[in-house]
Amino acid sequence: MATNVAQDLPIPVEALSLNEPKETKSSEQVIDPWNVEGAIVDGKQVAIDYNKLIQQFGTRHIDVELLARFEAVTGHKPHILLRRGAFFSHRDLTLILDKHEKGEKFYLYTGRGPSSDSMHLGHMIPFVFTAWLQKVFQCPLVIQLTDDEKFLFKQALTLEATYKFTMDNAKDVIAVGFIPEKTFLFADTDFVGGEFYRNVVRISKCITYNQARSTFGFEGTDCIGKSHFVAVQAAPAFSSSFPNIFGTDTQVPCLIPCAIDQDPYFRLTRDVSVKLKCPKPALIHSVFFPALQGPGTKMSASIDTSAIYMSDTAKRIKDKINKHAFSGGGDTLELHRANGGNPDVDVPFQYLTFFMEDDDRLAELKAGYLKGEVLTGEMKKECIAVLQDFVGSFQKRRSEVTDDVLKHYMDPNRKIVP
Amino acid sequence: MATNVAQDLPIPVEALSLNEPKETKSSEQVIDPWNVEGAIVDGKQVAIDYNKLIQQFGTRHIDVELLARFEAVTGHKPHILLRRGAFFSHRDLTLILDKHEKGEKFYLYTGRGPSSDSMHLGHMIPFVFTAWLQKVFQCPLVIQLTDDEKFLFKQALTLEATYKFTMDNAKDVIAVGFIPEKTFLFADTDFVGGEFYRNVVRISKCITYNQARSTFGFEGTDCIGKSHFVAVQAAPAFSSSFPNIFGTDTQVPCLIPCAIDQDPYFRLTRDVSVKLKCPKPALIHSVFFPALQGPGTKMSASIDTSAIYMSDTAKRIKDKINKHAFSGGGDTLELHRANGGNPDVDVPFQYLTFFMEDDDRLAELKAGYLKGEVLTGEMKKECIAVLQDFVGSFQKRRSEVTDDVLKHYMDPNRKIVP
Repeated sequence: MATNVAQDLPIPVEALSLNEPKETKSSEQVIDPWNVEGAIVDGKQVAIDYNKLIQQFGTRHIDVELLARFEAVTGHKPHILLRRGAFFSHRDLTLILDKHEKGEKFYLYTGRGPSSDSMHLGHMIPFVFTAWLQKVFQCPLVIQLTDDEKFLFKQALTLEATYKFTMDNAKDVIAVGFIPEKTFLFADTDFVGGEFYRNVVRISKCITYNQARSTFGFEGTDCIGKSHFVAVQAAPAFSSSFPNIFGTDTQVPCLIPCAIDQDPYFRLTRDVSVKLKCPKPALIHSVFFPALQGPGTKMSASIDTSAIYMSDTAKRIKDKINKHAFSGGGDTLELHRANGGNPDVDVPFQYLTFFMEDDDRLAELKAGYLKGEVLTGEMKKECIAVLQDFVGSFQKRRSEVTDDVLKHYMDPNRKIVP
Repeated sequence: MATNVAQDLPIPVEALSLNEPKETKSSEQVIDPWNVEGAIVDGKQVAIDYNKLIQQFGTRHIDVELLARFEAVTGHKPHILLRRGAFFSHRDLTLILDKHEKGEKFYLYTGRGPSSDSMHLGHMIPFVFTAWLQKVFQCPLVIQLTDDEKFLFKQALTLEATYKFTMDNAKDVIAVGFIPEKTFLFADTDFVGGEFYRNVVRISKCITYNQARSTFGFEGTDCIGKSHFVAVQAAPAFSSSFPNIFGTDTQVPCLIPCAIDQDPYFRLTRDVSVKLKCPKPALIHSVFFPALQGPGTKMSASIDTSAIYMSDTAKRIKDKINKHAFSGGGDTLELHRANGGNPDVDVPFQYLTFFMEDDDRLAELKAGYLKGEVLTGEMKKECIAVLQDFVGSFQKRRSEVTDDVLKHYMDPNRKIVP
């Protein structure tokens, strides 16, 4: 996929996430908010076909022309996650750039379905990118923590337990580093009410059960909370849900950075926008972040050896990369020297594409790996250093996110600068 | 039905509401929150079979023993609506009486789906009865105005319009006359949030879409807001939804007075209570209030000539009863004198059973009508006087319900005496 992007980018996007085969028959790829599974062809799992997703979802490639326009309008070189294709797809990003060019206001909206475990590297991607977008656009940002969703979709969870780790997750999110006076963070069970609830009700009138079912695959035995939740996730895309920021203005559009699996929610939301005579939210979609096992499932918070947690020590990061990171290197040193390695499936190299700032060094590593000059050990060492630095800096910021800081970010009565 | 009640009561309950035939084939009676239709037998509509409803819904008759127990425990002679069988069915009312006897606390919960028109006599029934129960039990009362529901179920309504007439309805409700320091009135779009929303989420996890569909007959083309709404109507049955009254106490049970068509909501709610380890709400159910057309549909706010509105003038009441009230009298004065009238289908007499306090006078009127001694004109005159008095007193109280009074009743920060 992304042939119109790939030429200029060191990493072909199709290599960024692969799934483990779960059955031996052939099947189509399945991508929705709860499933990320590549197609299975003759019992063998193939990489996620992001090109197919773009066609299937009806989104647009982020191509070199759009990247150039982004740079021209914002005066900023696109972020590594953008120029290297991790954010590869969009809806109406061009309209947002047009607005920015004209000095018209918009806001960013992203979110997180909080999990009980520490957040991991994969969870950072949309937030790191959103923080960068906020700095570029100097615009308000709302971050929804969907504790209600997690509770509804995980049978064993209580709402109290969900809320507790939601607050832990909230501190992690804050530690990514946003513009404090322009950022509002909220948990649904705290904030749903008033204008937000009114919008939930309005939205819930515009979506039929059949639409929710066909979009998300619900069954009759699923609880009513699940099919209704789409209205709760849609509500932050309407500026009037935030009187604390926009007053009663119903016409401020938003841009939603998210992983592509969240697109179904916002496809429905965009249809609802038309019915409610509000601007459609624009979207910018990322690929999935690969697990340490590489050509396997996406990084999962519940499988310790699949993920680098944001709470992992420097030593643990080193151990995980050395022990668990799938290598694209040759089977022996001799074979590697002779035939080179395959950076497209090499997890340490893949991780570097998400986190190493230096394009030249990345290109050098890739070229060296292909030629067999850069060894697996060296690639891992480089990856470990970059991740230790990223996670270490995060942990330093995280230690400064006190309960008071959390309360400040989540205070609905605080004035947010629009 | 209600043979165990009828002997002591002047009015056989089956005569209280009848529906107009809508088709010529035979069909079962349909009673749910949106339909009240008697069975059709060979193209002829028959009276609502409340006995069958009790069997079908699995509720219990309010029999003479229960009425005696009510009087013994409370020291109050049962209200006319109770002793004449308008409130004819219950779930766990005995448990509430046991609690009251032991001095344990509980609360009353009732509600209204606000409509754009003035409230009518039929709408008064649950509120008049609830006000009386509150005085008997000296307990807190919560009244839910489901503006969200009305908006979701009426395609053409906007939320703004719905809210406007919700506030008008709220004033009507207040004018019925509750104990101010023990009564909390709220519109969903104002109050849903916080603990209330948390309970909505908890409840919505306990009800499957299949349950909602089979209980209410939803279709796939209905919006997700409709099937979800059951959780919103269930939430006030849990004391923890009202931290303004009960703090965090999750174990205060409630008694819900309502028309029998609302029972499906609370059947589901009672199942949910078990799952949430909270007390099941008790219920006390009324029959439907007959339209002026008598053996016809229930009184409808949207058909002017079917209803006595609470805003009708004394003259309008007189005209409506004289012109539109279905009479059970003989076709001619002679026939009436000779054969007597039928009070069971006579609307003026039926209305008197709901509103005339004096049992002796009511019995006298009934006996006289049966014998042909009391004429249709006299029955109407008696009915007009009673209704003019009821509506006139209401209007006087209603004129005193200012915006400030409304605000006071609906203030979630006001301390309610539990």
